[in-house]
Amino acid sequence: MRSLLFAGATRPDLVAKLARSGPDAVAIDLEDAVPADAKLEARAALADLVASVEGPQVFVRVNGPATVWFEDDLAAAAALAIAGVVVPKAEGPADVERARAALGEGAALVAGLESARGVAEAGPICEAGPEAAYFGAEDYIADLGGRRTAGGEEVLFARSQVALAARLAGVPTLDQVVVDFRDEGAFERDAEAGRAIGYRGKLCIHPSQVTIANRVFGASAAEVGRARALLAAWEEGAARGVAAVDFEGAMVDGPALRMARDTIERAGES
Amino acid sequence: MRSLLFAGATRPDLVAKLARSGPDAVAIDLEDAVPADAKLEARAALADLVASVEGPQVFVRVNGPATVWFEDDLAAAAALAIAGVVVPKAEGPADVERARAALGEGAALVAGLESARGVAEAGPICEAGPEAAYFGAEDYIADLGGRRTAGGEEVLFARSQVALAARLAGVPTLDQVVVDFRDEGAFERDAEAGRAIGYRGKLCIHPSQVTIANRVFGASAAEVGRARALLAAWEEGAARGVAAVDFEGAMVDGPALRMARDTIERAGES
Amino acid sequence: MRSLLFAGATRPDLVAKLARSGPDAVAIDLEDAVPADAKLEARAALADLVASVEGPQVFVRVNGPATVWFEDDLAAAAALAIAGVVVPKAEGPADVERARAALGEGAALVAGLESARGVAEAGPICEAGPEAAYFGAEDYIADLGGRRTAGGEEVLFARSQVALAARLAGVPTLDQVVVDFRDEGAFERDAEAGRAIGYRGKLCIHPSQVTIANRVFGASAAEVGRARALLAAWEEGAARGVAAVDFEGAMVDGPALRMARDTIERAGES
Repeated sequence: MRSLLFAGATRPDLVAKLARSGPDAVAIDLEDAVPADAKLEARAALADLVASVEGPQVFVRVNGPATVWFEDDLAAAAALAIAGVVVPKAEGPADVERARAALGEGAALVAGLESARGVAEAGPICEAGPEAAYFGAEDYIADLGGRRTAGGEEVLFARSQVALAARLAGVPTLDQVVVDFRDEGAFERDAEAGRAIGYRGKLCIHPSQVTIANRVFGASAAEVGRARALLAAWEEGAARGVAAVDFEGAMVDGPALRMARDTIERAGES
Repeated sequence: MRSLLFAGATRPDLVAKLARSGPDAVAIDLEDAVPADAKLEARAALADLVASVEGPQVFVRVNGPATVWFEDDLAAAAALAIAGVVVPKAEGPADVERARAALGEGAALVAGLESARGVAEAGPICEAGPEAAYFGAEDYIADLGGRRTAGGEEVLFARSQVALAARLAGVPTLDQVVVDFRDEGAFERDAEAGRAIGYRGKLCIHPSQVTIANRVFGASAAEVGRARALLAAWEEGAARGVAAVDFEGAMVDGPALRMARDTIERAGES
Repeated sequence: MRSLLFAGATRPDLVAKLARSGPDAVAIDLEDAVPADAKLEARAALADLVASVEGPQVFVRVNGPATVWFEDDLAAAAALAIAGVVVPKAEGPADVERARAALGEGAALVAGLESARGVAEAGPICEAGPEAAYFGAEDYIADLGGRRTAGGEEVLFARSQVALAARLAGVPTLDQVVVDFRDEGAFERDAEAGRAIGYRGKLCIHPSQVTIANRVFGASAAEVGRARALLAAWEEGAARGVAAVDFEGAMVDGPALRMARDTIERAGES
């Protein structure tokens, strides 16, 4: 998932146009984009909003596990034909487990790591098995009482720790939002930096960001070739009944297999 | 505490002038600023030194827990009417607990995290409940056998880790010293970087640094407004007997309350 | 060890010239520099290759613990008169222990921390007691699915974490490779950055890098003086039967002693 484009549930006009810029997935947001007194109305409109999106996978971002809306948001999402749910401000494995229990195995979960506790618990949260995770720089640094800067040094530690924890658990990660959607240069530099750290895609809040994210996080031909070779080596070993397959001098294990499949998926050739 | 200004206990002339630049608190230093053969003399002069400061809260920085002077320094500080004690080179919760046992609940403790062990144990040390903590870049990097640079990349990891650990424990943190007190531009840039990471104030070693620290770490009107609103929501909930209060979509918990009070205190409006 | 210069076991011409540039140690590489179908041939040539190096300490880099070649590589190295073995891609204390069991106490072990798991387990791996460790940026970032950049921000977290974990265990660390060996300016900047973080030396892949590494990581006269004074204080205390010796206001402990000895050794004056 190279790009996940958000629109607020109170903006049916934007939701209906979400697919136009070509994002790999879209998210209808019940959380930050919806004020407290509009939460119930937004939830009630969800089925119509989902139906209005044509094309990519549709996710719903529910309100966070610490809010009064979480359980009912999950119940509303569970009743819809969607790809999955984005769980913001996850702070422990229990948050992933609650969402899984409400949604079942068929729905993909994207866990948001965007608080002091969420970053500190990134390992256990990712081990709880969400299909993806994201790092939320704005909420994280607000939680620390800090400030975002152009260079982003203030989140390098947390952004790197999340990437490492997610890799250890074999969970692909999406990189932080760039708030100023008019500054495409800033978005591209930030996307390149996230790609360098190991992120697989990026949260987008404007259609113009999608094009850049798809380009920066797209798999190169060499990467796809390597992933195919690894899968072929593993399949050939499996056909011979060999459990431990060697590829480029290292054992092929579960996370390596997941990453290889993810690379091929990223290239849009699943 | 936006600024904590230090002067050595062997310099009564500087101690008597500590309050002039308007620091939120001052520290009379028995540690780094006092050579080994002057430690006892400095300790004996402490009461007079404390009496010579007019205005802000007075702290005493004792020698570290691993030194032969620690216990007697604490005993000397306990006999004085001071705001609290700075414990440098804390390396575990036991160091905080020893100081608490010697000083009682009335004294504020500021734990210095400034060694490899201290940074690695920042979580447990802050959970032991000091009223504040600071990150000491010079001692930390000396302990690692490294070197300080102008850009400061060599301490970004440790400086970020301390800020995160302290936030998780609800402990406000003070940022690293800038040794070259003549370079006010360097101090301001470093203070802005520390503020971005989440630090609440800065150790100062020269009066000219105090003015800058007070400005950079001062709470803005918007921050004070938000803190007041959070406290009001919590108090209104408490008056109705509601334990779980929601504010801006998140539950108000202990650390959030402490941070809000800290913000208002920072603005000098407690 | 300021510089550890590598040459592939398939290049006897380069191995024979390894000592010329004056590295503190050299490593004959059975791992990355040798393709899979040449591994056995390279191992068989090892005795002759070791014999062809004149001067510095000789190490053999075996293939990693997760490969089919690891045990036989260790057995081949154990039969040779070498300084020790480099164990790449260590991912847990067991990897160090397997190498120790195969080689005995006489051989020095250098553990490579260069994967997500290796960096996350840097503490336990270093506590298992290798004589040195290194951080491998290329393999680490490849494991995360990221990309190396000129600024190196993408590995600052891991590079710093490894330096801290190694310091806590008293294990000296070697800094990452600079792949473009023609860019001496890039190597020098990278070496200075590693030195600032606390690294004691650098992996080198070309003779021209050795001269720079020896200069950047050499101990200054002041550092050697401080190390000698610390050792003298400790020896004087030991002569009086005093276990706890104080130096510059801190207790002299095991890691401090190892670092002091390392500093003097670095200056080539053991």
